[in-house]
Amino acid sequence: MSLLLTGIAELTTNDPARGDGHADRGDALLGVVRDAALVVSADGLVEWVGPADEAPDADTRRDLGGRAVIPGFVDSHTHLVFAGDRSAEFAARMTGTPYDGGGIAVSVAATRAASDDELRALVAARVAEMRAQGTTTVEIKSGYGLTLDDELRSLRIAREVTSHTTFLGAHVVPPEYASDRAAYVDLVTGPMLDAVTADGPTSLAESIDVFCEPHSAHAFDGDEARTILEAGRAAGLALRVHGNQLGPGPGVRLACELGARSVDHCTFLDDADVEALAAARGTTVATLLPGVEFSTRSPYPDGRALIDAGVDVALASDCNPGTCYSSSIPFAIALAVREMGMTPAEALHAATAVSARSLGLDRRIAPGQPAELAVIDAPSHLHLAYRAGVPIVRALDL
Amino acid sequence: MSLLLTGIAELTTNDPARGDGHADRGDALLGVVRDAALVVSADGLVEWVGPADEAPDADTRRDLGGRAVIPGFVDSHTHLVFAGDRSAEFAARMTGTPYDGGGIAVSVAATRAASDDELRALVAARVAEMRAQGTTTVEIKSGYGLTLDDELRSLRIAREVTSHTTFLGAHVVPPEYASDRAAYVDLVTGPMLDAVTADGPTSLAESIDVFCEPHSAHAFDGDEARTILEAGRAAGLALRVHGNQLGPGPGVRLACELGARSVDHCTFLDDADVEALAAARGTTVATLLPGVEFSTRSPYPDGRALIDAGVDVALASDCNPGTCYSSSIPFAIALAVREMGMTPAEALHAATAVSARSLGLDRRIAPGQPAELAVIDAPSHLHLAYRAGVPIVRALDL
Repeated sequence: MSLLLTGIAELTTNDPARGDGHADRGDALLGVVRDAALVVSADGLVEWVGPADEAPDADTRRDLGGRAVIPGFVDSHTHLVFAGDRSAEFAARMTGTPYDGGGIAVSVAATRAASDDELRALVAARVAEMRAQGTTTVEIKSGYGLTLDDELRSLRIAREVTSHTTFLGAHVVPPEYASDRAAYVDLVTGPMLDAVTADGPTSLAESIDVFCEPHSAHAFDGDEARTILEAGRAAGLALRVHGNQLGPGPGVRLACELGARSVDHCTFLDDADVEALAAARGTTVATLLPGVEFSTRSPYPDGRALIDAGVDVALASDCNPGTCYSSSIPFAIALAVREMGMTPAEALHAATAVSARSLGLDRRIAPGQPAELAVIDAPSHLHLAYRAGVPIVRALDL
Repeated sequence: MSLLLTGIAELTTNDPARGDGHADRGDALLGVVRDAALVVSADGLVEWVGPADEAPDADTRRDLGGRAVIPGFVDSHTHLVFAGDRSAEFAARMTGTPYDGGGIAVSVAATRAASDDELRALVAARVAEMRAQGTTTVEIKSGYGLTLDDELRSLRIAREVTSHTTFLGAHVVPPEYASDRAAYVDLVTGPMLDAVTADGPTSLAESIDVFCEPHSAHAFDGDEARTILEAGRAAGLALRVHGNQLGPGPGVRLACELGARSVDHCTFLDDADVEALAAARGTTVATLLPGVEFSTRSPYPDGRALIDAGVDVALASDCNPGTCYSSSIPFAIALAVREMGMTPAEALHAATAVSARSLGLDRRIAPGQPAELAVIDAPSHLHLAYRAGVPIVRALDL
């Protein structure tokens, strides 16, 4: 049965063909239609989009009561497969203990010790929590297993809830390899990668990722990261990179050089990094994760400068137990506006259209597209940042 | 029927007699009991508190599944009685338009134009939204009416949902009095105050408040504020002050001198202000409103320094359409920890015990006290800041 949605005060389509109206609200960027309606087909695809007074009939209808509708958030960077509680590490960091990535080993130990069903229940609860906050598409990385079996298990559990899985065996060097890093890189690029791609290149993981960070003794330097990414590319995986999170480094330029879909964090950039990102526009997205800067009391990346330089900027949560246990994209949007100089429209676009592109997706609300929608208890998308911290947006169940 | 609550991984009682356990988690300050139970009487009072293995029987029982329970948040500073939408003003401010209080007139016009039932519905929705985020007690100010009738109407509507109402006729000088400020002060301290207290000093308002701010042409200077507060005190109202929000000024010292229950904002303080607040400990609370600094891109007050100086520090939302349309106390707690150097325990204490004191309330979980509780979808209060932006706390319906 087709469904007609009415009572939409403002519809963000992300379709440039539709943008008009208030320039200062970013209507052109967001492809905003005011007083809109939407028809969804029985199989969950958008059939028709336009002004309410031109809407066709449908089998059933639902009135959204003057709310705003947006594309569901695409959270393109998360680490949801983990067990254990690191809240005390957070509290210690807030009173002065610095973050260097070492706490990841705590989550690795707890994750290895958890049963499949325990991990499955934790992931399901986190995905449900995200959906309740407007996220309809989620990428999930492995990286708290760090043995062949535990990485495979993490990816299998992630794949049960999303096709956007990322092999992050190169999250950190696990403690048992601390004195022989090369052997761990060999394990990641050899047996682990072989097992991940055994049933076909993307049977278990869509992408490969590496925490490239010379400022952490636990993470990987530029040469190690290149080895890992090139092996992943040769095996048929798309590339993602954790780059320039804790200080300047080679991660961003390496990602751009290798044609990664995304380089994430981008907290410490120099001019050459920004130029590389601008030159990689259309290929490599800079995914900013301001919840991490919030939760580690780091300076924020300059989102404004990146956009002005012509960089494709996405926003994601980085939901993880160490540096940001926030799954809230509205919170990331509010931080992008408050701390990174992005407009409310740019921030919403970054958390939908651009983050989608970094996963190879088209996230417009247009005929033929999946009706992955979120609804805001407010008349416009401006309220996402205006009402910081308040849960006013949720995925729309059709 | 009495109710036994079990499955409480961590209970914050705010009762200093109970504090023990982890010093670095603030257990002493919060009076934490781990693996706790609670008996609530048929009339909603706490009957018994203690370790679960010592719990008495009750008529019914409910298992909270290993969650943390805290006293419900006391939001001691809100402006919930308003109509209209100022999200575009927020968006403009985020791209550079400074805040000077002038936008209040926009809300005044919309509020005057709204019907009683419209205002009532708006207030009810906002209180419900706050309860869904863990707030069980709310103070509500008038101040978007600014005529005798509209201020009375605002207070009557607020009093329908809380006894903690505050007369804020002195929010700003309304446009129609811009050329005769003294006449407006006379109106506030004369006919308005007479009407507010006509049926007894606290029949309609518990407190009087003034926006003391020499840096805004719309607000009141120190002499005007003193006149208003002294008139309110003479009429039998408790005193509250908006002080030192936009720059240094006389508000904080005036509040301390006059024995106000609270002086709110405290964004720009000098040493003499801090000394006055420390000397007023036990009488005047400094209520910090970090959602305002977030939403106006202002520097944050130094909560750490205030606590270290011996000042009673409370946290509240300041939920209002201009400078902070966030009703989220968890968000304020996360900001207090990230931006103001407060520990998670100090922030929770500030948003419950200390904010309660500023309303003349005792907000401990102890026998004989009202069972105003909130429950966290996590095993400890640390998660309130650790999981910034995620809606994990709600008022507990008994």
